Amino acid sequence: MEEAEVTLREQISKIEGLNEKTMEQARQRQQILAKPPGSLGRLEELSIQMAGITGMLKNQIQKKAVLVFAADNGVVAENVSSAPQSVTLQQTINLTRGKTGAATLARHFGCDLQVYDVGVNAVIKEEAVIDRKLAFGTQNIYKGPAMTRQQAVKALQIGIQATAKAKESHMDVIGIGEMGIGNTTTSSAVLSVLTGTSVERVTGKGGGLTQKDYLHKIQVIEQAIRINQPNREDVIDVLAKVGGFDLAAMTGAFIGAAIERMPVVIDGFISVVAALCAVRINPLVRYYLVPSHASFEIGYLLAMKEMELEPIFQLGMRLGEGSGCPLAFQVLDAGCTILNEMATFEEAGIGDDYLEEIRQGDQFQV
Amino acid sequence: MEEAEVTLREQISKIEGLNEKTMEQARQRQQILAKPPGSLGRLEELSIQMAGITGMLKNQIQKKAVLVFAADNGVVAENVSSAPQSVTLQQTINLTRGKTGAATLARHFGCDLQVYDVGVNAVIKEEAVIDRKLAFGTQNIYKGPAMTRQQAVKALQIGIQATAKAKESHMDVIGIGEMGIGNTTTSSAVLSVLTGTSVERVTGKGGGLTQKDYLHKIQVIEQAIRINQPNREDVIDVLAKVGGFDLAAMTGAFIGAAIERMPVVIDGFISVVAALCAVRINPLVRYYLVPSHASFEIGYLLAMKEMELEPIFQLGMRLGEGSGCPLAFQVLDAGCTILNEMATFEEAGIGDDYLEEIRQGDQFQV
Repeated sequence: MEEAEVTLREQISKIEGLNEKTMEQARQRQQILAKPPGSLGRLEELSIQMAGITGMLKNQIQKKAVLVFAADNGVVAENVSSAPQSVTLQQTINLTRGKTGAATLARHFGCDLQVYDVGVNAVIKEEAVIDRKLAFGTQNIYKGPAMTRQQAVKALQIGIQATAKAKESHMDVIGIGEMGIGNTTTSSAVLSVLTGTSVERVTGKGGGLTQKDYLHKIQVIEQAIRINQPNREDVIDVLAKVGGFDLAAMTGAFIGAAIERMPVVIDGFISVVAALCAVRINPLVRYYLVPSHASFEIGYLLAMKEMELEPIFQLGMRLGEGSGCPLAFQVLDAGCTILNEMATFEEAGIGDDYLEEIRQGDQFQV
Repeated sequence: MEEAEVTLREQISKIEGLNEKTMEQARQRQQILAKPPGSLGRLEELSIQMAGITGMLKNQIQKKAVLVFAADNGVVAENVSSAPQSVTLQQTINLTRGKTGAATLARHFGCDLQVYDVGVNAVIKEEAVIDRKLAFGTQNIYKGPAMTRQQAVKALQIGIQATAKAKESHMDVIGIGEMGIGNTTTSSAVLSVLTGTSVERVTGKGGGLTQKDYLHKIQVIEQAIRINQPNREDVIDVLAKVGGFDLAAMTGAFIGAAIERMPVVIDGFISVVAALCAVRINPLVRYYLVPSHASFEIGYLLAMKEMELEPIFQLGMRLGEGSGCPLAFQVLDAGCTILNEMATFEEAGIGDDYLEEIRQGDQFQV
């Protein structure tokens, strides 16, 4: 094993589970808040998860960041995407200029947006784009591996470092998004391999393919898996052979969140496949994940089910870019706020004065 | 027909549909924003609905209010609720003191909270509670009608006036919540009658009933319908006979939102039954409704289906009080923000400089 991979595995092995003690405290507090137990459903669960992640009973969601990993995918040469490759560059730049969907929502909800170039097929001159370029796009998985194993390891490390940087700037939560034309193709390929599911069942129409192009996309993915023979027990091998720089770096970011003990929001289809890769590499990552919206892409729910997760929103979104994260941050914030600020049954007493009134009131009832 | 009801019907007949022209403008704008068409799903739909409601292409969700209608329900004498009646008074007061779940979320997300006493079974001395008390609770529907037809008409008018007041204070959106022990029982009764569905299929366990108490609750509702014989074609009759002051005032608030051309958020089960009552009174109300979370109560989805609506969140919540509204306001806000601030394809151009780079970049790919 190469030295870089040894280092990576050491980092990954440091991940610990949640703090059971603070989770139990949070659970007990939710029981004594002035409401029927469990009546705030997943808001309660999120507050308990947060306590387990941070090791503190009360948590606040103030600093929020969406990390976007941008890269091109060589497989676009096979006409698997409805948009031209240049859109990756365009939208990577537009993300930092605040013009895209995710950028608009991030700004509006006070979230930082950190855009990483991990392999866009162009020289990017914008200083706001963080340069971690591994190559000018991956190779075409239809003809061979997307990247070398060394590149995959490096991409994972870039993701881990991106999360470490977010932690250093005191982010309370991060969300993982992407920009990369062709990455629904690679995500379907990775998901098919990891779960042993037929390509057809994990492949959608991406940004907007016709039925004919969709059938072609399935054939391309099937061929990519056949020709590369990824080893499903070895996630790094799968990412290197049929994945992408975006997917691999995102996987690293999910792993990094668990290393840094930060909650991490899953966006759409590509994001959930990266989350699944991270969980397959170390199952403890699962406990740091926070779902957001149910992507329109058919593979999304399969990947979620593999991790026993359920989406929070039903918004019919399929934009990517981390666009589901800002709203999920609001929900996590709501959960923490309930635990922090709601009155307990004891605190909710309204005073003896009113107890007397209730008895009076009861007489009016007749 | 009494004069008050004639006036009410005149008000209701003033409701108009959405502004098709601004909706079409919004639809066209969503098509030219720099994203695959439709890829922001319901965020796009909400922005189009908002344009139709206000008659303006661009809208902002800045001033937000949750209107909570509190009342007691005489049917609690039949032991249909797991909580004592005094909880209505307690939580009505706690809402204004910022201590309940909904109050906590409303404060955190910058929403006004307007609490109306339309029939709490106690004298309320808090100035913050808006006094519109119709009686000290309704009569017991197990033994006769909840209220007179005149009271139902008055409750509807109180709801309409509450919305008018919210409009006067320039609210951009309102949400409709409630506080009233026993009101899942009355809501199930109203829903069963309006939809012709068996009581069993619209009745849940409320705040937390045992199986035995649950079967008893069903029997109570069945008897209430049998003894009162509400006319399902006449919503006011249904509300008067097996409803409650809370339900009737909430129905009025939904109607008021349509009169005032304001978007109005449905909270949980009781709220959705009131929304359905409003839609049955005037089908145009439907176009002003904004869903929030899917309530845990089984009747919720039936009522939504009747109106061809789908929830936005899956949070397993069943607290009531309008607790789902603040998060729904965030989603509506997100939808409007996308339409207002996202770049169009034309605006998303990244400049000739980069177009040159893309060509260069393509060479790196080889």
